[in-house]
Amino acid sequence: MSNPCILCVAITGSLPTKANNPAVPITVAEQIESTQEAFEAGATIAHCHVRNDDQTPSSDPAKFAALKEGLEKHCPGMIIQLSTGGRSGAGRTRGGMLPLSPDMASLSVGSNNFPTRVYENPPDLVDWLAAEMRTYGVKPEIEAFDLSHIHQAVAMQKDGRLKGPLHIQFVMGVKNAMPADRDTFEYYIRTVKRLAPDATWCGAGIGRVQATLNEWSIALGGHTRT
Amino acid sequence: MSNPCILCVAITGSLPTKANNPAVPITVAEQIESTQEAFEAGATIAHCHVRNDDQTPSSDPAKFAALKEGLEKHCPGMIIQLSTGGRSGAGRTRGGMLPLSPDMASLSVGSNNFPTRVYENPPDLVDWLAAEMRTYGVKPEIEAFDLSHIHQAVAMQKDGRLKGPLHIQFVMGVKNAMPADRDTFEYYIRTVKRLAPDATWCGAGIGRVQATLNEWSIALGGHTRT
Ligand SMILES: [Zn+2]
Ligand SMILES: [Zn+2]
Ligand SMILES: [Zn+2]
Ligand SMILES: [Zn+2]
Repeated sequence: MSNPCILCVAITGSLPTKANNPAVPITVAEQIESTQEAFEAGATIAHCHVRNDDQTPSSDPAKFAALKEGLEKHCPGMIIQLSTGGRSGAGRTRGGMLPLSPDMASLSVGSNNFPTRVYENPPDLVDWLAAEMRTYGVKPEIEAFDLSHIHQAVAMQKDGRLKGPLHIQFVMGVKNAMPADRDTFEYYIRTVKRLAPDATWCGAGIGRVQATLNEWSIALGGHTRT
Repeated sequence: MSNPCILCVAITGSLPTKANNPAVPITVAEQIESTQEAFEAGATIAHCHVRNDDQTPSSDPAKFAALKEGLEKHCPGMIIQLSTGGRSGAGRTRGGMLPLSPDMASLSVGSNNFPTRVYENPPDLVDWLAAEMRTYGVKPEIEAFDLSHIHQAVAMQKDGRLKGPLHIQFVMGVKNAMPADRDTFEYYIRTVKRLAPDATWCGAGIGRVQATLNEWSIALGGHTRT
């Protein structure tokens, strides 16, 4: 196969706690162990969040540094992607780990609704995160929660705020954002091919639609997130 | 023509001041005069914002009441649509005029970026505005700034939060939101036809793309906003 399917594993996410699922890895040691299992099973990219000791979401650069160091040791060659998302309202602290120069980091380029709140990514924060990623040689994964986010990423590449080629993740299944809709998924792919022919893409289904999005992504030639 | 094109006139908007354009009608008296001219020229719907005396955006129900009364007198039969949008962060004051039972009111069902900020429409505010519109018999015009907003409006109709048939406006040309893109515009129309076949739609181009969106809307059988 000339275009191997890349598996991206998101072992923790920003919200689920041990109360939701006793298996969710919270501490850095648990995360490293869990990622190593996924790496040995074939995952290529680790999409990483870190947590405070009380399991609440964190962007602590020291925690990210420890996780990155452990993954480099236990999963040699795995692509490490740190999350700058999820912690709406936290401003620039969301990008405090970018000086660690991870291989990749997630980047939202627009705002949208989440189940109970607005996921706020104001334009000046987006531009600052993108500039930090250029400074520290971090490749962004664009989190497209809606169609305009694809257009925005392309505009940012055209005017130099993002370095190409783009890698865009289509996120579906978050309540009050884009549902898992096959027709839309195919239109996302057509839009990427039309506006940024050299871009790569992957699909991520949140919650119960995860397997659906994996299936669509593999069938249509993209990468995917488990 | 079995499906006449409906012209919707937005005489004021929420932001331009006399400094930007001396012709922009700010006071209620100016707005009534300007709308009457548009009505006599063939406009069917008046999309209305109100302003404070210093020209800043307002949602004052008393101002909306005076405007509505004047329009009913000077533009008999014209459809009056009051805006609940634009004033991000203002919360429920954005819907304080709904008890006036205007024919229509605008309703954003999702959040997105604007030129310099997040246009915040948190889920609980959206649900409250929709409930007020049901209570007071106000037909919403859904302001679709992005594709997921169409999906969200359809979901809200399905579970009874919105009364059908839907009327959806495709808004394009706001910086950091959806640009004026013909392919996307046509996909919006296909999406509405697929998910809500009884819905009506119109196109609104902001700023320099206004005429473009008018042209596309008329060519493709929708209503339009001038
Ligand atoms: Zn994540
Ligand atoms: Zn990915
Ligand atoms: Zn308006
Ligand atoms: Zn309209």
